Amino acid sequence: MDVRIFDTTLRDGEQTPGVSLTPDQKLRMAIKLDELGVDVIEAGSAITSKGERQGIKNIVSEGLNAEICSFARAVKVDIDAALDCGVDSVHLVVPTSDLHIKYKLRKTREDVKQFAIDSTEYAVDHGLLVELSAEDSTRTDFGFLKEVFQAGIDAGAKRICACDTVGMLTPEKAYKFYGDLTELGVPLSAHCHNDFGLAVANTLAGLRAGASQAHVTVNGIGERAGNASLEELVVALYSLYNVKTNVKVGMLYEMSKSVARMTGIYLQPNKAIVGENAFAHESGIHADGVIKKAETYEPITPELVGHKRRFVLGKHVGSHIIRERIKEMGLRVDDVRFDQIFSRIKALGDMGKCVTDVDLQAIADDVMGILPEKPVELEELTIVSGNKVTPTASVKLKIEDVGKLEAGVGVGPVDAAIVAIKKTMKDVVDIELEEYHVDAITGGTDALIDVVVKLRNGDRIVSARSTQPDIIMASVEAVLSGINKILSDKKIREAKNPEF
Amino acid sequence: MDVRIFDTTLRDGEQTPGVSLTPDQKLRMAIKLDELGVDVIEAGSAITSKGERQGIKNIVSEGLNAEICSFARAVKVDIDAALDCGVDSVHLVVPTSDLHIKYKLRKTREDVKQFAIDSTEYAVDHGLLVELSAEDSTRTDFGFLKEVFQAGIDAGAKRICACDTVGMLTPEKAYKFYGDLTELGVPLSAHCHNDFGLAVANTLAGLRAGASQAHVTVNGIGERAGNASLEELVVALYSLYNVKTNVKVGMLYEMSKSVARMTGIYLQPNKAIVGENAFAHESGIHADGVIKKAETYEPITPELVGHKRRFVLGKHVGSHIIRERIKEMGLRVDDVRFDQIFSRIKALGDMGKCVTDVDLQAIADDVMGILPEKPVELEELTIVSGNKVTPTASVKLKIEDVGKLEAGVGVGPVDAAIVAIKKTMKDVVDIELEEYHVDAITGGTDALIDVVVKLRNGDRIVSARSTQPDIIMASVEAVLSGINKILSDKKIREAKNPEF
Repeated sequence: MDVRIFDTTLRDGEQTPGVSLTPDQKLRMAIKLDELGVDVIEAGSAITSKGERQGIKNIVSEGLNAEICSFARAVKVDIDAALDCGVDSVHLVVPTSDLHIKYKLRKTREDVKQFAIDSTEYAVDHGLLVELSAEDSTRTDFGFLKEVFQAGIDAGAKRICACDTVGMLTPEKAYKFYGDLTELGVPLSAHCHNDFGLAVANTLAGLRAGASQAHVTVNGIGERAGNASLEELVVALYSLYNVKTNVKVGMLYEMSKSVARMTGIYLQPNKAIVGENAFAHESGIHADGVIKKAETYEPITPELVGHKRRFVLGKHVGSHIIRERIKEMGLRVDDVRFDQIFSRIKALGDMGKCVTDVDLQAIADDVMGILPEKPVELEELTIVSGNKVTPTASVKLKIEDVGKLEAGVGVGPVDAAIVAIKKTMKDVVDIELEEYHVDAITGGTDALIDVVVKLRNGDRIVSARSTQPDIIMASVEAVLSGINKILSDKKIREAKNPEF
Repeated sequence: MDVRIFDTTLRDGEQTPGVSLTPDQKLRMAIKLDELGVDVIEAGSAITSKGERQGIKNIVSEGLNAEICSFARAVKVDIDAALDCGVDSVHLVVPTSDLHIKYKLRKTREDVKQFAIDSTEYAVDHGLLVELSAEDSTRTDFGFLKEVFQAGIDAGAKRICACDTVGMLTPEKAYKFYGDLTELGVPLSAHCHNDFGLAVANTLAGLRAGASQAHVTVNGIGERAGNASLEELVVALYSLYNVKTNVKVGMLYEMSKSVARMTGIYLQPNKAIVGENAFAHESGIHADGVIKKAETYEPITPELVGHKRRFVLGKHVGSHIIRERIKEMGLRVDDVRFDQIFSRIKALGDMGKCVTDVDLQAIADDVMGILPEKPVELEELTIVSGNKVTPTASVKLKIEDVGKLEAGVGVGPVDAAIVAIKKTMKDVVDIELEEYHVDAITGGTDALIDVVVKLRNGDRIVSARSTQPDIIMASVEAVLSGINKILSDKKIREAKNPEF
């Protein structure tokens, strides 16, 4: 079987509490989803607002490969709004459970069935493809559910969709439920919510039972616990079921990152497939195994989904990985010194610290009696800021023993300090700040703040971090430690390849 | 069937890349897990380090109800370390797949079987309960897998565990696989990883097939994409399968928060059961339904797991919820004004903004021609900071038209500014900063920073936010807007209940 991917990131996904996308962001995301290869893009719900309609119209005029769809309730005004946007299809939703009919709509089953018929006919008459969807279908009397679907099909609906609105299916129930609905003889969509963490498993069961289309969102975003996650579903189909979709799996990580950035809904590191830790290894046993043969602790290669492997040093780190790293640093250590390095790293871990590359370098340098290379040192930093003052920073650096002083202004004190540092370094080395990342800080205003920066020098990128309670000092020290790494590496390279 | 919960948050969970817990943190977490009601606490891997052994010993001496277990490889030195800690049991792990045996261990099947027998005998002889675990069991020749387990059982193992080390099971395969292993006649654990997002579904399938114990971690943390999540599994068993565990479901949200804080692994808002959005509603249709009858869009009540319902205003917001909120604010609006308020909120949403309570208040006040209550205004803020300066802030506030000036110092400039504000307010109102939260900032140092604070005044808690490129200004304005909310609410209350 081949499976069609109906992406609802721009509709169900955008209903994530706190998320609002501008028409321009929606357009950019739709172009990317089209490039990813989804079959249907549910671009929004046209009735929502003027901006929403503008967003959908923009997507329609882009002439993408995917079918462009609007959500619509089974009322004329919603379908008119969709028609106004020029979409290919409507995802026409009627609630079918007695709970929804009685308490939300305050109507009867007969009313609802009639709404489904009337609105399907109206939409079809106006040239729209109709996917008729039953909301809360899994808590609906099954006989009535089939009746509504059959009435809709007779009225011209080309596809049907059964929504597990509050995520109450289990894989066994989903298999039976969607299987029974295939008897209606039209293409069937599985639309599963993740309230019990089972959205992907239930969608897979629905597809195994004969559903031909899966409703998903990138990163599984959506109301409450969200929808089935596109990347988990597609990769499970690909790797575990050998089922094809039109999605380019190699773009999944990039797509996920882009949706996280635009929505502001960042993923937990242990998110499957696309989380920052999905291919990260820490413990001694695991990292050791991956170095010997990646398949031991990786079900798929990170490259398959456009992700990267990452080793993290911590208290579970094994000696193999530390040896590898030290070799990479170009150091030769005997066994006695190696044991010293290893036990100091373990001790750091016991103190609750995560060990970075720079920490390892510092420990190794110390044990080997090598004085750390610090071509650049911070002599003085002063910042002045406030509501009636332009944020201003002065920085005095000692660069190869020569003092250099510069001042800068910025949108805030951190920005001003970094501007000043860049000025100071201008004649020494060309540095661009590629990425500046502060982890979520929760606690008091005196909590430790972890700043990680990525600096670019030509085609070389170096990352560095600093952790301090003062965000300005943490930012400055992270940048300076990155600059020092770039300068020392440069020296080593120049020593190896002297220019004549 | 009743299911036993084997919690491995302190072992597999702590192997999450970047996570290291101190012995003290481990102890606090173990006490909380015991209170939660898990049956087994895998407290760590005794061989890891000195600090790890201290952590396990502390947990053992606490005399908890749960069985305390240590991870151990099938080697004498690991078992000795576990014995040294005084644990009740060992989770004794041997790799059984040819991939692991050949590439990681560089041994033969016969060697591995012998390790299992020898180490089980050694552990049993020294009084430990042995749960014999097969690593990468799902990629193991099934005949050999049963052979190893049988040999272990003959040597005295009381329980067996089959690990789906790289998360490659599907629910169908898990049902067959764990079902076949129940034939060995001893209690069986399912240990599933989440690489394809199926860990919980696979564990449930294993339990349905006859496994009696589930290995889980709080928040699903662990190496790569993590392990089966305790809260999702327990609540799915409770709500969807009517299966009991000893876990107090009402403590799940609190437990999750506490693990997130201690590990620094924060959850995405759309995490099932315990995510911040798990019971949050934004779209018009959904929020409207929940107000009429919560079951329409909630499979379980938030209270069941100790969580809270939350309504978020955004561009999908319906008129019902805005009417509710305006009523709560004590305002009476006619239809014309209501439409004005509603359309301005929709417009904010179209601009990509999430609408907070304070925004709604401001819009309503404006439309109603009410001058906003701002008892406290910022006149002047000046901060000086740097590497050789104690971070210092002076703040001049206009409080009910009287100027007040104070200065404060702190660990950083944000802290100093908040200290100064608190001093200024001392005689006016008693304010405690309960929570200070800065969202992850990624981008340049000039990116917008979103600060949300929670302030306490007596038993009243108020949240407020500010978004600006300058973290100090954002923090100060968020705190001041919270103070203003507290002061105006107080006035309204006092007007309603004048003291005689």
